[in-house]
Amino acid sequence: MTPVSAVASPTSTRAPLRIGTRSIRFPSMPAILSTFTVAGPKEGQGPLGRLFDTVIPDTFYGEKCWEKTESKMLKEAILHCIQGAGAKESDIDFLFTADLLSQCIGGSFAARDLAIAHLGIYSACASFGEGLILASMCLEGGFAEHVVVGVSSHHDSVERQFRFPTELGVQRPPTAQWTATLAAAVMVGRAASPFAGDGTPVRITGATVGEVIDIGAKDPYDMGTAMAPAAADTLARHFKDFGVPPSHYDMIVTGDLGAIGRRIAIDILESKGLAVRDRFEDCALMLYDRRQGVQAGASGTACSGGVFCAYLHRGLKERRWRRILLAPTGALHSPTSYKQGEAIPAVCHAVALERVE
Amino acid sequence: MTPVSAVASPTSTRAPLRIGTRSIRFPSMPAILSTFTVAGPKEGQGPLGRLFDTVIPDTFYGEKCWEKTESKMLKEAILHCIQGAGAKESDIDFLFTADLLSQCIGGSFAARDLAIAHLGIYSACASFGEGLILASMCLEGGFAEHVVVGVSSHHDSVERQFRFPTELGVQRPPTAQWTATLAAAVMVGRAASPFAGDGTPVRITGATVGEVIDIGAKDPYDMGTAMAPAAADTLARHFKDFGVPPSHYDMIVTGDLGAIGRRIAIDILESKGLAVRDRFEDCALMLYDRRQGVQAGASGTACSGGVFCAYLHRGLKERRWRRILLAPTGALHSPTSYKQGEAIPAVCHAVALERVE
Repeated sequence: MTPVSAVASPTSTRAPLRIGTRSIRFPSMPAILSTFTVAGPKEGQGPLGRLFDTVIPDTFYGEKCWEKTESKMLKEAILHCIQGAGAKESDIDFLFTADLLSQCIGGSFAARDLAIAHLGIYSACASFGEGLILASMCLEGGFAEHVVVGVSSHHDSVERQFRFPTELGVQRPPTAQWTATLAAAVMVGRAASPFAGDGTPVRITGATVGEVIDIGAKDPYDMGTAMAPAAADTLARHFKDFGVPPSHYDMIVTGDLGAIGRRIAIDILESKGLAVRDRFEDCALMLYDRRQGVQAGASGTACSGGVFCAYLHRGLKERRWRRILLAPTGALHSPTSYKQGEAIPAVCHAVALERVE
Repeated sequence: MTPVSAVASPTSTRAPLRIGTRSIRFPSMPAILSTFTVAGPKEGQGPLGRLFDTVIPDTFYGEKCWEKTESKMLKEAILHCIQGAGAKESDIDFLFTADLLSQCIGGSFAARDLAIAHLGIYSACASFGEGLILASMCLEGGFAEHVVVGVSSHHDSVERQFRFPTELGVQRPPTAQWTATLAAAVMVGRAASPFAGDGTPVRITGATVGEVIDIGAKDPYDMGTAMAPAAADTLARHFKDFGVPPSHYDMIVTGDLGAIGRRIAIDILESKGLAVRDRFEDCALMLYDRRQGVQAGASGTACSGGVFCAYLHRGLKERRWRRILLAPTGALHSPTSYKQGEAIPAVCHAVALERVE
């Protein structure tokens, strides 16, 4: 079977890159050159624990407050990602970062110590998808040779910002999701990059950008319900635009829908005649063991990024899967919008990743 | 004289688009197809007042809180911008939005009522530059036919978030800047777009992306001092990368440095041998009359966007200038980082805009 970058047309390199108004092909297939993860202690104890590059010993990591910890984790993930490819900061054209902190300080404060041109992005927990899409555009369009996408989240900094003071220990309902303490960075470049090392089998071949969808769900302790329709919308559009069935992918992996949202998204897609049930996974259900007390699963900007770097990217490289559709989802509310009685708009960006040999 | 998209090489369309790791040429010269502004009452009373497309009668504009007002202003700016070009939402491939509210709700809540694929961005008050650059990449790379960039800020929503409750009426020092109540949207497309109307003389020809620079300035009532070094860094890099002197541009317009920051940026650039003094303007000093009590000038994500749409774009169209280098600057702190004793990192993205006939 041909990669998704070619399915929309047999003459792939000459066909338009744009499919409709939301989908894009990347015929040059930008390559994942390097990844790095810095995980929190709880994440280190989860099923992916041994796959993270670094597990920090405690949630402060030598800093006085969690916001600084998060920036430090992100900076280290970015630096080690670049160094892991044998590159230097000066080899990187652009750095995209995203986090959940107000005014995106996780990324901005990580970037201030790096001599790399910086572009902040925000799609909440869907940001890793946005970052991969914009990085791929930079590569495919010839605007960059190497781009790094870095995402971070910290359970304690996010919880006290979005909900209650962390020390209060408020009881969490079973629909709640646990924001991951995690930072992840990927370096994207051409397959012919001098930093390609022993080969770059994992490539970005296409993507579908999400519309913001608000179904009126208002409970910040049930973001899965708010995000599932956005995930279903973007995934359905992706299959339609690229003219492929869900079975084109070995696995469809949403980001952070959790146990509740995953079921809703599957139901919506199946009701549209899209048979996704046998291959639909979610990053929120991969990061922790359910016995770790995380209710409906994980969340956080770095959840899908961290699961991709530690697990999905590795699985593609090791031939466990050949094609994955990664679809990070984001809840676009804020503590202020919540207190003002607003619902939770959501978005989902889908990225096709394939092993090309 | 040739446009900046061509100066880096005489064979412009074949030369690399990438210049070093921070600058990009756009040989296809994406065109500004349409603009729209929605201004607050104070902004409507300023020197650009009659140039805004809409001036709202009061700071609430029929909403119960200022955050909702800001989203409404932004949504209207985006919709009227699209309609003004004779286009529909379905003609737009991607919408980039940015604002200063926590978790970027200004843009996300505007986007939820629009059926357009949405990508949130954040460079604080430099976001309009980031948006124009990413939109130009989408066009130049063939990933989109039409892209809208929308930015917003609201004095009262920002002031109570970043500093003190608005009703408290805290005295402001002379270095403070007044966040503008303003929303601005631009629609970018090809010169051959069916929505090009009577012509699209104003084009985006090149850009330089900023690095995050932190000089240790900590006073949120003096952001000009914090941002000036970032502005000088990006501008100096732009002149070097494109091999042009400051006099290549009829005007260099930073975004929101204010009276203090503008003087510092000029001094830094002149000390590097770059003669900018006779053509260096700043959006913060254009939006208000100094008698309006705005201390060192305006600020806000929409300041540079609004001044561009209402004044600079018009001036380029009307042949007042031929080439402008627009360099929005952003202070990347948050109320949390400030309370944790952190300094104010800053960034500046420069965009070359030229009249091409």
